[in-house]
Amino acid sequence: MRWRHPGQLVVAGFAGVTLIGTVLLMLPIATTAGQSTGMVSALFTAVSALCVTGLVVVDTPTYWSGFGEGVVLGLIQIGGLGVMTLASVLALLVARRLGMRLQLSAQAETKALGLGNVRQVVWGVIRLSLTVEAVIAILLALRFGLRYDEPWPRAIYLGVFHAISAYNNAGFALFTDSLIGFATDPFICVLIMAAVIIGGLGFPVILEVLRRTRRARRGRPWSLHTRITLATYGGLLVLGVIAVTLAEWRNPATLGPMNVTEKLLAGTFHGVMPRTAGFNSLDVAQFEPATLLLNDVLMFIGGGSAGTAGGIKVTTFALLAFVILAEIRGEPTVHVLNRRLPGAVQRQALTVALLGVGAVMIGTLTLLAMTSFRLDDVLFETVSAFGTVGLSTGITAKIPAAGQLVLVALMFIGRLGPITMASALAIRERPRRYELPEERPVVG
Amino acid sequence: MRWRHPGQLVVAGFAGVTLIGTVLLMLPIATTAGQSTGMVSALFTAVSALCVTGLVVVDTPTYWSGFGEGVVLGLIQIGGLGVMTLASVLALLVARRLGMRLQLSAQAETKALGLGNVRQVVWGVIRLSLTVEAVIAILLALRFGLRYDEPWPRAIYLGVFHAISAYNNAGFALFTDSLIGFATDPFICVLIMAAVIIGGLGFPVILEVLRRTRRARRGRPWSLHTRITLATYGGLLVLGVIAVTLAEWRNPATLGPMNVTEKLLAGTFHGVMPRTAGFNSLDVAQFEPATLLLNDVLMFIGGGSAGTAGGIKVTTFALLAFVILAEIRGEPTVHVLNRRLPGAVQRQALTVALLGVGAVMIGTLTLLAMTSFRLDDVLFETVSAFGTVGLSTGITAKIPAAGQLVLVALMFIGRLGPITMASALAIRERPRRYELPEERPVVG
Ligand SMILES: [K+]
Ligand SMILES: [K+]
Repeated sequence: MRWRHPGQLVVAGFAGVTLIGTVLLMLPIATTAGQSTGMVSALFTAVSALCVTGLVVVDTPTYWSGFGEGVVLGLIQIGGLGVMTLASVLALLVARRLGMRLQLSAQAETKALGLGNVRQVVWGVIRLSLTVEAVIAILLALRFGLRYDEPWPRAIYLGVFHAISAYNNAGFALFTDSLIGFATDPFICVLIMAAVIIGGLGFPVILEVLRRTRRARRGRPWSLHTRITLATYGGLLVLGVIAVTLAEWRNPATLGPMNVTEKLLAGTFHGVMPRTAGFNSLDVAQFEPATLLLNDVLMFIGGGSAGTAGGIKVTTFALLAFVILAEIRGEPTVHVLNRRLPGAVQRQALTVALLGVGAVMIGTLTLLAMTSFRLDDVLFETVSAFGTVGLSTGITAKIPAAGQLVLVALMFIGRLGPITMASALAIRERPRRYELPEERPVVG
Repeated sequence: MRWRHPGQLVVAGFAGVTLIGTVLLMLPIATTAGQSTGMVSALFTAVSALCVTGLVVVDTPTYWSGFGEGVVLGLIQIGGLGVMTLASVLALLVARRLGMRLQLSAQAETKALGLGNVRQVVWGVIRLSLTVEAVIAILLALRFGLRYDEPWPRAIYLGVFHAISAYNNAGFALFTDSLIGFATDPFICVLIMAAVIIGGLGFPVILEVLRRTRRARRGRPWSLHTRITLATYGGLLVLGVIAVTLAEWRNPATLGPMNVTEKLLAGTFHGVMPRTAGFNSLDVAQFEPATLLLNDVLMFIGGGSAGTAGGIKVTTFALLAFVILAEIRGEPTVHVLNRRLPGAVQRQALTVALLGVGAVMIGTLTLLAMTSFRLDDVLFETVSAFGTVGLSTGITAKIPAAGQLVLVALMFIGRLGPITMASALAIRERPRRYELPEERPVVG
């Protein structure tokens, strides 16, 4: 069998790693009880880790042994690095193939995005990831050791695990209540948020920001991708922080009992987490219904492309907004920050967004039919799985095995991207050689 | 002030009629109690009638007097005829302006759609509407008179009211429990469904079907619009009927107690109603959560363009599916049933769908924050308002006045179309005379 599309290779690779992870997690040595784990639970955990989601059907610290936690951590690192690398390389290849067709403009853009060649991209991703993870791990370990009096081996282990989990937007924690115990510790919260944001902005953006700060190339314009990502990621961050903080301000089960400073810290933390880290410092099950739906929207949009965040990505969301704006204004072409947006990119954004809506809707309908949970909880769960977020109102473990497999499918689809999935299924590109007559149905 | 866009005129016209309707409904003579109705309730009822939605904050038969019911019926007729006419004329004008630009193909299509000139369209809509309404009214009146022993003036009144309400997909009924009392009467149910479908397919489709059956022009191909509408409307009908019937089969509060024939009739009725008539022969509040969400999806999609149905329209939905299919297959152009789909139409479909999602999301978030209802009920209510469907789990009257105004806004937006609303706001088309360089951000 020949690989006709890079998407097929990606899916096959992820499936292979999932299989290995599942088998390892099924070993008795992987649990504290020394017993073998059921296949669905092991598969769910492996996929949740590899797809950097963070939804759990068993309690990570008490259920898994050190070996089990190590497998989870390894899967997170492979999954995060893998998608970051693959997406960056794909962006490079697409830009190159376009470069051959469109000559100048696409090549200029490849340069702007700073993607030189495949080897540079791969090493760049690995170097960036390990550096950020190491810095965050050291700082976290110091905090756990000095402030919480953890013995140093344990403090270092906690630092490394949560640094990797945060940078990869994975949301796995070694505390049964996630980070609720640290809701009012600005040190821990800020470090986790920093790692989440750096990993979630995406490699091309971080690379461009780093290069510019180092070399101060003021003359060359920022790439469109970086400008859109930073503006949208930042805008959604501010929106999320304000909305979550206000919506939960008086909720006696979340922000209510805290003082103003603590409210602002925990509100900020939960404004950042839906994009798409999945740690929680508040009890998500106690959120107001409006906060849950707002989280659904933010989780669905997700973070930056070619990073560790999930969702349909902030660029996809922003481009669709620009398309709508152009349509409302009656402009024949779509302009984004003084650049023309090709029709193919518009179509791609539309496809990613609508296939995402479709996957979430089908998953939600299936889970609603299988369980007696209400829409609030089920939609939150499916969006969290699709967006590889990992926040939950706590129903994950209560869903029957068949329903957990639906979540597994959503995590897989959400992580590898509707586009990659779909492209992998299509045997190959099929350009038509002849032109059909145009016809315009009435719309709306 | 000059009218710069036909959309502005439409919005102004609807606002004017709403004002008149509200004032008339506030008169003491409009109620059985002879008391003046509060402004929000009167406004809500007027908008619900004019936008052929059918959501109610007071019980139509017991609250409103004969005069009040007459006002409601008049608003339904104006709203239904108005949008059907305006949308058909707009389709004609768009096709004509394109005809000047694109020459042959668009003109051929105008002919295929059978839209000759504005006067023909207006009279065609009025003739079709009155004919269908009259036939259904007579048959319904006979049934009410002969089977239910209503005195003849009352039977005729019931026939006329429900015929107009059904053909215009308005969903207002003169029975407190809507049509639950007739759930097992195939005669009433089939007549209502027939009127709903004829009105909901849209004028261009009905016209083309009528012309072809009359003159048997086998040689000329069906227009793309009619083919897509019939296929999608039919497909969603079958899907809705099967899914609703199966999902509610054992529900003791809906289909459960019925025999198989009755189950099939009531299931079919509720498979048809989300597209977007809004009568109910089952208690919607007792639907399973999965049935509610399925209804949400169907109500959002709605019926045919340039008809009395609401939603984003079946063509919009189908075209987006074809765009996604082309993207998945890696085809550079989008083909629909052997016709090429222009980029502008793709962009229009995208805008209608996503602005709809946006409106529903913002409305739902607002209502969730205002009330203590759960997402199941609130989302159903907002989608029902946006899709001008009128089905409800019964929370409409319990929502505070500010929330009811949110629903009023959704009905208005849903009825006049995100596109018309948006175009009316834009002062005028702004074509740019220069071309900006192209740039492709990473998507997904
Ligand atoms: K996550
Ligand atoms: K309706």
